[in-house]
This record gives sequence, C-alpha cells and structure tokens, in this order.
Amino acid sequence: ESPLSNYYSFMFQRNKGFIALRDWVAIESDSSNVLKRPDLHRMMEMAAQKLRLMGGTVELVDIGEQELPDGQTLALPKVVTAQFGNDPNKHTVCVYGHVDVQPAKLEDGWATDPYNLTDINGNLYGRGASDNKAPVLAWIHAVEAYQALNMELPVNVKFVIEGMEETGSNGLDAMILAQRDTFFSDVDYIIISDCGWLSRRPALTYGTRGNCYFYAEVEGPKQDLHSGVYGGTVIEPMTDLVGILGDPSGKILIPGIREAVAPLSDEEWRMYQDIQFDIDNYKNKIGVNELMYSNKVDLLAHMWRYPTVSIHGIEGAFSDPGTKTVIPAKVTAKFSIRQVPNMDPAMVKKQVTDYLHSVFAKRKSPNKLKVTMVIGAKPWLADTQHPLYDAGKAAVKRVFDMDPDLIREGGTIPIARTFQDVTGKSIIMMPIGGFDDGLHSQNEKMSRYNYIEGTKLFVAYLNEVSQIKHTSV
Amino acid sequence: ESPLSNYYSFMFQRNKGFIALRDWVAIESDSSNVLKRPDLHRMMEMAAQKLRLMGGTVELVDIGEQELPDGQTLALPKVVTAQFGNDPNKHTVCVYGHVDVQPAKLEDGWATDPYNLTDINGNLYGRGASDNKAPVLAWIHAVEAYQALNMELPVNVKFVIEGMEETGSNGLDAMILAQRDTFFSDVDYIIISDCGWLSRRPALTYGTRGNCYFYAEVEGPKQDLHSGVYGGTVIEPMTDLVGILGDPSGKILIPGIREAVAPLSDEEWRMYQDIQFDIDNYKNKIGVNELMYSNKVDLLAHMWRYPTVSIHGIEGAFSDPGTKTVIPAKVTAKFSIRQVPNMDPAMVKKQVTDYLHSVFAKRKSPNKLKVTMVIGAKPWLADTQHPLYDAGKAAVKRVFDMDPDLIREGGTIPIARTFQDVTGKSIIMMPIGGFDDGLHSQNEKMSRYNYIEGTKLFVAYLNEVSQIKHTSV
Repeated sequence: ESPLSNYYSFMFQRNKGFIALRDWVAIESDSSNVLKRPDLHRMMEMAAQKLRLMGGTVELVDIGEQELPDGQTLALPKVVTAQFGNDPNKHTVCVYGHVDVQPAKLEDGWATDPYNLTDINGNLYGRGASDNKAPVLAWIHAVEAYQALNMELPVNVKFVIEGMEETGSNGLDAMILAQRDTFFSDVDYIIISDCGWLSRRPALTYGTRGNCYFYAEVEGPKQDLHSGVYGGTVIEPMTDLVGILGDPSGKILIPGIREAVAPLSDEEWRMYQDIQFDIDNYKNKIGVNELMYSNKVDLLAHMWRYPTVSIHGIEGAFSDPGTKTVIPAKVTAKFSIRQVPNMDPAMVKKQVTDYLHSVFAKRKSPNKLKVTMVIGAKPWLADTQHPLYDAGKAAVKRVFDMDPDLIREGGTIPIARTFQDVTGKSIIMMPIGGFDDGLHSQNEKMSRYNYIEGTKLFVAYLNEVSQIKHTSV
Repeated sequence: ESPLSNYYSFMFQRNKGFIALRDWVAIESDSSNVLKRPDLHRMMEMAAQKLRLMGGTVELVDIGEQELPDGQTLALPKVVTAQFGNDPNKHTVCVYGHVDVQPAKLEDGWATDPYNLTDINGNLYGRGASDNKAPVLAWIHAVEAYQALNMELPVNVKFVIEGMEETGSNGLDAMILAQRDTFFSDVDYIIISDCGWLSRRPALTYGTRGNCYFYAEVEGPKQDLHSGVYGGTVIEPMTDLVGILGDPSGKILIPGIREAVAPLSDEEWRMYQDIQFDIDNYKNKIGVNELMYSNKVDLLAHMWRYPTVSIHGIEGAFSDPGTKTVIPAKVTAKFSIRQVPNMDPAMVKKQVTDYLHSVFAKRKSPNKLKVTMVIGAKPWLADTQHPLYDAGKAAVKRVFDMDPDLIREGGTIPIARTFQDVTGKSIIMMPIGGFDDGLHSQNEKMSRYNYIEGTKLFVAYLNEVSQIKHTSV
C-alpha cells in the first residue's frame, strides 16, 4: 500500500482530513443534552451522507425512542450502517464507532471554542476530535484512499456508527440482536477504535474490565428528621451506611473477590514490563503526587486486570452547598466494582450482598438494608494470539516501524462484549488516539500525526486482514 | 384574672381567635422562598397593623438586605417591635416570636389546603398554625384581653416579631445588638413561645442544645476521574472520607467530648423520671420500631443533655438518581455535633479537627484533609429556680390545675443565646404548642384547646410575673 500512503500524505497536505474533521466537530452532537438532539440527528445524517457519496450501501436504522426521567419520550438518533463491497471470497470487517460527544462549554476551561476545530502546533483541539470523530473519519478516509487510487478494497468493509455511546449506547444492543442474521451474518471481524494509546507508542487493546454497579440503601425513619430534635434517640441510616462502607484499609475486603481473579502469569508480568508507560506523566495528568503503587507493573495490573471498588456518592443525603441539619431517612450509596476474568458478575452480586448484610447485621441496627446490583457488565478479553492481532502487529510495524504495545482498558466498553456474545465474532480494538488526548475533559484534541498515521494504519490493516487464511477464521 | 378567662372563653366562642389565626395563616409567609417575599412583607405589615390598632407603640425596623447565592440582594422582612405600657414601676417583659413559616404545598401530602385554616375535630390545620403564628397571636390576645376589660396591664409588654426565623434569623442578631441600649434597655425578662410541649402535659422549657457544624473536605486529583480508567491506581478521596467517618459503633469516639459533658445529677435523673413521655407514640411518629435507648430517662437525656453527632451528607460526590462512574476529586462531608453544657464550641472544634486529622494520618493518604467548623452555636440553659420559672409554674397551675413538666429542647434556638449574651436578661421558654403539632411537616396544626388555654396561660403569666419581687431581678 505504498501508493496509498503517498496518496494520504498528499491529501492531508491539502487539508482534506482537517476540513472533514472540522465539519464534524462543528456539530454539537452531545447525546446527554436533550436540547441538542436536533444537532445529533443532523450529525447522523451527515455521517450517512458522507458514506452514501462514497458509494456505500447506507441505512439509517431507526432504533426507537428513549424515555426521559420526566416520562416524556425522545427519538433516539438513528444508527448508520454502511457496506462497501460484498465479495463472498473476501473477509468482511465491521468497524464500530460513534459520532456523539461529551458535553463541552468554553466556560469549562477550554482554551479554544470546543466546536471550532483549532490547530495549535499540530494538535487539533475540539470536542469529539479524539473521542470518536477522527477515528471514525480515519476509517472512512482509509476506504476513500483505496477508491481514490482505483484500488479494489482487499476486504469488504461495513460500518456501524451510533450516536448514543456517551450515554450508554441506548438501543444499540437491541439493534445488534435484531440484525444478527442480516447485517452481521457475513461479518468476520469487528474492529473498534474507540480508545487510546497508553504512551507515544502505538497500541492494540485486548481487554476491558467489566462493571458491577451497586446501590446499597439503608432505610430508617419514615421521613427526614431534624437532627437537633431527634439526634441522640434515633439510629441514623447515614451512620449505618457510612459504617458498613467505611473500612480503614481502602481495600476490597469482600471474601471471594480477590480469589476469583485470574493470577498474573510470568508472561503477562514480563509483557507489562515492556509496555511504555510514564508514571510521572500519569501523576501529572491526574494532579496527584502519589499513586496506589509506585512501580509500572503494579499500576498497569491494577488499572487493567485487578478489580477495584469506587464509592461514587450517596443519594438521599444532603449534598447541596450550605448547612442543613437533617437526619436523612433513606440513603443510598452508589459504588461499583470493576471486575475482571475470572470473576462472574452473578457471583460478585452474591458476594457483595452477603458481605454487606453480614457487616450490617453486626451493627444490630433496626434500619433496613437493601443491596441491588443495577449494572452487571462483563469484562472483555481477546486472545492476542488470534490472527486479527497478528495482522494488527504487522500493520503497526509497517506504518510506524515498531511493535505495538498490547494493552488493556480499565474502563468498560460493554458494546465489545455485546458484539462478541451476539455475533460470536472476534474483535480487535485498534486505537489511534493519543495517550494525552483529554477525552471527556477540557481541551480534547487529536494530533495531526495520530490522525494521518492512524489513517495509514487502517489502510495497512485492511490489507493485512485480507491475508488472514480463511481456515483460521 | 377570672374575669379575663371568662372574657376569653367568650371571645373564642365568637370565633375571634380563629378568624385572626385564619387571616394570618392565609398569608404564605415562607421566608425560604424568595418569590414569596412580597407575602412575607405583607405579613410583617399585618402584624404591625394589628399591634398599632391595639394602641401599641409600633415600629417596623429595617434590618437591611440578604445576599442570594447568585449575588443578587433582596430586602429582608422588617422586624416588628411594639410596646404596651412604659410604667417604670412595673416589670417589662419582651415576647419574641416569628410569623414566617416553613414551605408547604398541598401536594406534599396535606389533607387540607395548608393556607386555609381548617378546623377538624378541634384541631386547626394550616402551615404556621403552631410554628409560630398561634403562639404570637395568643400573646397579642392576652394583651387584648386586659384592654377589653379595661384592666391595666400588670407589666409593660414589648414584642419582637421577626420574619426570617425559619431560615436562620438573618439580620436579627445585629438588630438586637443595635437596640441593646434603646429598645432592650428596660426589658427585664424575655419570653419565647416558639417550641412545644413534650406530651399532653404543659411544659416550661429551660434548655436547648448548641450546634457545632463541620465540613470535612478531602481533596485528591485535580478533577473528577473516570472510575473505570483510573480506579485501582488512585487513592480515592471518597474512600478516605468514608474511612475516617465510618466507625462501627455509631458512637462519638472523639477524645474529650464525652468528658466535658456535665454529669447527670440524681436530681435531674429523678426529674426525668417524672416527665410525661410516651415512647410508643414517639416511635410511631418517627416510624421506627427501635430507638437508641429503650427507657425514658436515657431517651430524654440523649435528646436534651448529651451530645450527638449526625452525618447530614456529602457534597461533591455523585448524589443524583442513576449511575455515574466517577471518582469524585473533592468531597466534603457535612456533620454536626449538638453540644451541651459544659462543652465549649472552640474546644469541640479543636477536638474534632485533631481527631479527624489523627485518623486520617493513619491512612497515609496523599490526599489533603481540611476540617472547618462553620457554625458554633452555644447551648442555652436557664436556672429553673429563677423566679421567672416559679411564675411559670404558678401560671400553669392556675390555668391547667397541674404542675408543668420542666423540659429541654434537643434542637438549637440560637436567638435565645443571643438575647442572653447581648441583653444579659433572663429568659423563659413557655410553649403552648402540642407535642403532635407536626412542625415543619405536613398537616401542621394547633388545637383549639392549646390556643385558648395557651392564651389564658399568657394572661395568667403576665400577672404572675408582675408579682416577682423587684429585688430578685
């Protein structure tokens, strides 16, 4: 694909990639803001139109409505599906991406207008630049590159582009299930580029953690009470709740959790040692002087392949500014456990519930404890020996002249697991975002370098995938 | 004052008291709702006009403006002061009350319109009926009674009626201080009727707890982090905060706090035994099956004269409905300690701060802890041997033919302490509200019985106070 690479360098010199990204970033496709829903619809239409003009077979799939907390309903953004090529003798890859974005306002602390893509020293600043508009465009550019040079695509390429990723991919699971035997029936491999590198070294991602999200509700008096009038006579739900959550160690004490975790193999340990990861940079980015662990292997392992618990907050208690003297009657702690192989969400649910009830029982409180697991998203882990990953390594080698880091994600990308469970196909995550792109944060950016080289990587990857032997599928 | 009592029974039979209270309750004088400020101004004017028509020397004292959270300013309701009689040979009492109310809406679960006083089986339902409009009117009726029968008031009577009590008596402290040497210079005794009985037995109140309100802030990363991406590497502020607050016992573990509490004397213990208090009724009202203590003396002691700590909530963490996977960067727990003689707020501040820092230090966390005491309101305790209380007992005996319970309040009435500290005068709290009046709650009421007999009590009390020997002042 040397002519392709040359073509693409040329195209970017003519700023076509910049202009495409600028046009997409200009649309405030914030899926969490219902007032921006018209912009989001426009964004989906714009993506569909782009693919149509390239000659793809494009559909805007209606995935229904979402119900708002106040009971009103709102049309979900349609899902864009597209197909380029349908040669049964070729492999078929399906690229997943999203074009909705997190909220952003200039006042949040952006140095530039978040919806006006701005090039500063080779970095393209704008909301959604890295998450996930440039990666989606890079895949589109990769197809365009073959077309521009009148080269046949080495594989059939499908797209699934959604507009609700940032708020939980509402409606997408059902759409995948519904089209399992149609759109997805001939898909061999699924490619997701909705993540980032860990350092300046390119990476392939082979795992994400799962998420078990819990509510622990302690209910006492029938209504909130005045803390002056009743304090001292009532067993306060908040005291109970803080008492069962508060543990001096900060570790997960729940029996059975740690035991279920797949042991760190020597090989994995060695692999982690070779991964490029700048601890000082990481500390600086977060703004802390000290992390939970001081060495790279421990940090990576606890970011990716060990479980962790976070207490997100408490609903029902007083959380506003100011002073209120209330004994809250019913308080609900929200916490989640990121789980990993070989933990089982159903088992985690039982372990957490049993543990909290046993700790609560020791308090001999008359209040009532209710533990609910409201999300039970499984982790995802790919086999890095699969030909998909070999193809990825080869493509990285070709474009960047180095070996990629094989990394995992600490967060959860439930759609990966859905694709795997529903379609039974193999998945690879192939990020092109930089480690310092500021996803979900102020001054999100995509570097020109990552955008251009990322496009080349995708061009090369399509070629590598075409060489996977059919028997190995 | 037998003719007075007869007069008053007669007046209530003609429903004058009901009509007066109905007119006052009809005004939604909610001091917490800035949109109701015009109603609140009207309420103050109405109270002033009532006192003017009775021939009092009335002033509407401008106490300035309040600043709203958004920086706007809003005129505070004026404070009504009034004077009836200025005979230097008589004692002068000053009655404090308020005519602002807590919020109330029919939809909150009221059986009747909260602003349309409704008589059901002798209970007068309406917001502010018991807290504090009927008690203020009962004091006014007491003066009216003397006037109607052309009887000279046995003491000079002053009124201080404010409109911001429910939101912290904004501006009143400064007003009292400013008028210390004018309006308050000839005041001998201060009477507050802004509380309730503990049972069906009349009560005199001789103490309130103080309030030390704390913020404990734990600050870590420079911004909120994604719990999936960062969980496992970062020492989370929320874990630290819950860790230092959570204690399995639910007791105050802070060294020095319990030691400072004045010991319960045998006499006090005996006094508590004689107080009428229905534990089942109390449980039922709160909606719990079990209290902190199962016997009356312990319950009363821990409601009134032992300190208690309540955790009100956490600011900065996730407190909305739904699931958010955040590691909050800065979280602030709000808790308060109701303190009692002989605790000293300055010492409590030091004890709490030192304790939390010492517990926090054991965690060896890189996060920063900041402890602030934002309210330090002292407790108030009167000498029940003072002639003011003897006069109260005599008045209760005369009207109800029984001895009052001598009780305390678990809550804080900071204005009592201000009156005491600024004017140096003795104070009595003489409640006429019923134990089940539902202050601050739905279906607040004042019974006709308490309203009428309360008015008689005030008439009798003025007479009793007039007989206090001048030397004992």
